[in-house]
Amino acid sequence: MTRHSPLGPGREFDLIRRFFPLPAHRDVIVGAGDDAAVLRSGWVVSTDASVENVHFRRDWLSAEEIGYRSGAIALSDVAAMAAAPVALLISLVLPAADYGTFAEQIMSGLKRVANGFGAALAGGDTTRTEGPLVLAVVALGRTEHAVLRSGARPGDDVWVTGLLGGAALAVQEWRAGNQPDPSTRARYAEPLPRVREALWLAQRLELHALIDLSDGLVSDAAHIASASNVAICIDASAIPLHSTSQPGVAQPPPGFQLAGAVRSALTGGDDYELCFTAARGTVQPIRSEFEQLFNAPLSRIGSVVAGRGIEIMDENGNRVEDVLSGYDHFGTVS
Amino acid sequence: MTRHSPLGPGREFDLIRRFFPLPAHRDVIVGAGDDAAVLRSGWVVSTDASVENVHFRRDWLSAEEIGYRSGAIALSDVAAMAAAPVALLISLVLPAADYGTFAEQIMSGLKRVANGFGAALAGGDTTRTEGPLVLAVVALGRTEHAVLRSGARPGDDVWVTGLLGGAALAVQEWRAGNQPDPSTRARYAEPLPRVREALWLAQRLELHALIDLSDGLVSDAAHIASASNVAICIDASAIPLHSTSQPGVAQPPPGFQLAGAVRSALTGGDDYELCFTAARGTVQPIRSEFEQLFNAPLSRIGSVVAGRGIEIMDENGNRVEDVLSGYDHFGTVS
Repeated sequence: MTRHSPLGPGREFDLIRRFFPLPAHRDVIVGAGDDAAVLRSGWVVSTDASVENVHFRRDWLSAEEIGYRSGAIALSDVAAMAAAPVALLISLVLPAADYGTFAEQIMSGLKRVANGFGAALAGGDTTRTEGPLVLAVVALGRTEHAVLRSGARPGDDVWVTGLLGGAALAVQEWRAGNQPDPSTRARYAEPLPRVREALWLAQRLELHALIDLSDGLVSDAAHIASASNVAICIDASAIPLHSTSQPGVAQPPPGFQLAGAVRSALTGGDDYELCFTAARGTVQPIRSEFEQLFNAPLSRIGSVVAGRGIEIMDENGNRVEDVLSGYDHFGTVS
Repeated sequence: MTRHSPLGPGREFDLIRRFFPLPAHRDVIVGAGDDAAVLRSGWVVSTDASVENVHFRRDWLSAEEIGYRSGAIALSDVAAMAAAPVALLISLVLPAADYGTFAEQIMSGLKRVANGFGAALAGGDTTRTEGPLVLAVVALGRTEHAVLRSGARPGDDVWVTGLLGGAALAVQEWRAGNQPDPSTRARYAEPLPRVREALWLAQRLELHALIDLSDGLVSDAAHIASASNVAICIDASAIPLHSTSQPGVAQPPPGFQLAGAVRSALTGGDDYELCFTAARGTVQPIRSEFEQLFNAPLSRIGSVVAGRGIEIMDENGNRVEDVLSGYDHFGTVS
């Protein structure tokens, strides 16, 4: 198949890659380049910074939601390794005016999401800043078998949990000066880290590759493709779309040409659903049990083939030439 | 003895304490409140944010030093648990203008300190900000026996490694518009995390309580006192002072009354030396070997007694009434 030029990795990845080979240590099994580092004795660890006016805006979220969301995003990295959350730590960088109630509400939100997913709040530090609010959240988890981005094999099917594009739609509404409807807003404000879903799937399937959708489907699938040295072919018409009017798996409009909702689902970030690959035929038998248990669709959206990069096909099997870049944290929110 | 009202814990501690009881997890042996969290199977983990104009200034440090220093501070937390460093992760929050060479130099400095202390660079993320540069560094280490702040016992002696007050002196010089001399500057710009020293001591001694001096001796000793439910009596005349003219253990001037250098050593932060307590008489036998091996003094600066808080005595054994608060990150640099 013809492949688009490599997608995905943007500036933040380049900066870390420039320093390969990184210092290594025998107790670090997997270092930079996956959703989390994998440490000896089954630990995984990641760090993620949420920055005001880059990743969120104060007029969009309450302080409690800002804290909740930063923790949920961190926990999603643990889910993306098929690990069970153990602990969160936070470096909270606060403008002076936020000391007091605002900071407490942030911590309340963080505590709520930690409690909700069985993680301890195991420490951190708080410091003043003259600039925007920053929450750098460390997530730790445990697993006997971390699922990496690098295990996708030609012949695998590509699956996603849940509905895509909701968070991007919320951002779009806010930007247009509208209030997103509550279900759309919740997709952005309180993303659901698919911790239980990842553990459930990993117990029942051999997951070959796994990632969480933080940057957007195209961008994140490209990470799997790149790490696994394969190509991924996405069927745009199979993408489960967030829809305000029609909960469940939305149907793409007939003859769509990357309509707005599909574009949001392909390139919009912040959904924090899971994308994984597994051998063809292994997921279908547990699909309906998953959907009932988690009240969320499990959708086959593509396949892994030999090659490199990402290919997007429309409902007629024609290649979509309009190559889309994923969510880029360098120009989105502010 | 008479005790001063409780010193130490400032706003950042209050914020975390307000949320006790924090969510817990059986794999988190020690959570918030020590230099690092202690996890099952011998891991320790901490996170520390360095914020431009709060913890450092661009006109004081090169980009490489900013990276080095942030990593050294993180490694110092690992040393403060008597653990061996394994890995660093970084959340690097960058103003747009810093992409490129400046960011690369930060990463070079971080890589240099990781290499120097045997730690892997195991990941992280980079994100844009409209505000000041923030480096949130996660440090991971391993130890079979983490030394906490809470183990000090009446009858212990209190010891510190190295010389104190140098980093505070450098800051003082910069603020006065002067360039600190190279050795003073280095104490601030490239603090030496006492990783090897902590491991060496822990192999030879039963360390009862251990902390690194980030906030200043009085403030950090108060953390030990508070965590251990004891009082600590500091002999101000025994504090090993950083001196530009006289390397080695400086003598306090006769009849001093909290002269500038002593005040810096008591309250100035950022030295990243170790402070520990051990049973009386157990340290003296290995002191000279330590001093030769590490080319740094090992000084008995006080004792642990029943009670609460910190007491500071002058060279005549009189209580110093001028209670000093430690380095407070909420008003120092900017």
